[in-house]
Amino acid sequence: MGSSARSTFRVPAELDLAAIDPRGRPIGPQDKAEAAERMSELGDVLDGHQEALYAEAVGGGTRAVLLVLQGMDTSGKGGVIRHVAGLVNPQGLMISSFKKPTAEERAHHFLWRVHPKVPAPGQIGVFDRSHYEDVLIARVDALVPEEVWRGRYAEIVAFESELAARGVTIVKCMLHLSPAEQAERLIARLDDPAKVWKYNTADLDSRAKWPAYQQAYTDALTATDSDTAPWFVIPADRKWYRNWAIASLLAETLTELDPRFPPATVDVEAERARIRASVPA
Amino acid sequence: MGSSARSTFRVPAELDLAAIDPRGRPIGPQDKAEAAERMSELGDVLDGHQEALYAEAVGGGTRAVLLVLQGMDTSGKGGVIRHVAGLVNPQGLMISSFKKPTAEERAHHFLWRVHPKVPAPGQIGVFDRSHYEDVLIARVDALVPEEVWRGRYAEIVAFESELAARGVTIVKCMLHLSPAEQAERLIARLDDPAKVWKYNTADLDSRAKWPAYQQAYTDALTATDSDTAPWFVIPADRKWYRNWAIASLLAETLTELDPRFPPATVDVEAERARIRASVPA
Repeated sequence: MGSSARSTFRVPAELDLAAIDPRGRPIGPQDKAEAAERMSELGDVLDGHQEALYAEAVGGGTRAVLLVLQGMDTSGKGGVIRHVAGLVNPQGLMISSFKKPTAEERAHHFLWRVHPKVPAPGQIGVFDRSHYEDVLIARVDALVPEEVWRGRYAEIVAFESELAARGVTIVKCMLHLSPAEQAERLIARLDDPAKVWKYNTADLDSRAKWPAYQQAYTDALTATDSDTAPWFVIPADRKWYRNWAIASLLAETLTELDPRFPPATVDVEAERARIRASVPA
Repeated sequence: MGSSARSTFRVPAELDLAAIDPRGRPIGPQDKAEAAERMSELGDVLDGHQEALYAEAVGGGTRAVLLVLQGMDTSGKGGVIRHVAGLVNPQGLMISSFKKPTAEERAHHFLWRVHPKVPAPGQIGVFDRSHYEDVLIARVDALVPEEVWRGRYAEIVAFESELAARGVTIVKCMLHLSPAEQAERLIARLDDPAKVWKYNTADLDSRAKWPAYQQAYTDALTATDSDTAPWFVIPADRKWYRNWAIASLLAETLTELDPRFPPATVDVEAERARIRASVPA
């Protein structure tokens, strides 16, 4: 058994990102082969629960799950979608990518573009970046005055509280990457013809502001962590560990939700007879 | 090599659904074990092409793929999404389910709800039911007068032609099920506590109109089949064969499209030097 992923990775009350090792493996598999085995088991767990969650909603249930992924460039948000979200039936997924806001989005409240992406009952929503960009890049690049981004903490807490009250279980993950590993990954992108399309010169601008981003993450996670919308800090320098950790968080979350297939609402015996009596062709 | 899935399953010019065996295995794997092996290979093919299609769009490409799934209840539209669409990165998928139209949808042109669901460049869209319901159930249940549903054939052809011209490659599959197999699947749903939630008494109403539906399918497929938006009739009584056939169609389609990773748009040497020179933390 050992400790749960939820307790191990939960952001501490006094967050010091520099004290968390991006190559850490505090629990769980210690090598890639062991992680692959565990991922296969987690896939079965996730797939079963996801189907029940979906079925529950068809039966009138209102519960959903929202996985929020944040992290510096190359920290692996896309990899988590491929390798963790990819473990479940795609019909039960709502994946939303929040890129640089468009002119129309900028003309609205920062949550305007987020509301339509909240997962519907029965769905597992995944945010690839999120409303947190509005207290991260918006702060680091001074896109809005300080009182505006600071005020957003309370708005985010209120927004997420309402989602939680409506049945959306929120799991927020910060993919914690080291600057040295980022450099390796950026170079790997440049060197691979199948990856160079992911390379964006703007990534280096963010990289140059690393300490400011770490501060912005620290303040954002601290201000918006709660038992109903918890933050987790995921060691992200090892891709297989990152994937295992987030799959485990999701599996624990869904196991706790314990979604159930709705009972039959029809007279099973009568319907069976109707089917047997039907000779359609 | 043998025949391609595209040529084997393409709807014939003179379509007689009764002459197509829903348990047929005209090409490809002849048993479940062989199909599992082939699916694993097809998964790699699909995953690779899908990533390149996605990358191509990031680089400014406009191409996309749209898989349309139609078929009687229990024919396996959901199973195809799980087992075929589930083979690729969920980030590259747009899955849309077209249920009974809402009051708002009914108040609009029948294509109104379809337009926003057309896959964006780089995406593989999947329609679980589609605009074809408007010439199927709409006809069988006389929801609109004959001149209306008949007129829709030309509208659909024009709509799909425009999509094709814009870069959307359309693959339309009719999951061809026998009424006997449907009866078994409906009873299996009733008997399984994890499946009974899928059981809908209205399914028996459609089942009772089987011949009318077969006629509606025959006319719709004949009227809307074209080289740019072809229809395929998939033997669907064996789930593993159905999944293999559609995975093969998609793989052949993507192989023909041959999407390419976009070339580097940056000065790779200069960027490598910039990364190496950066010491962010």
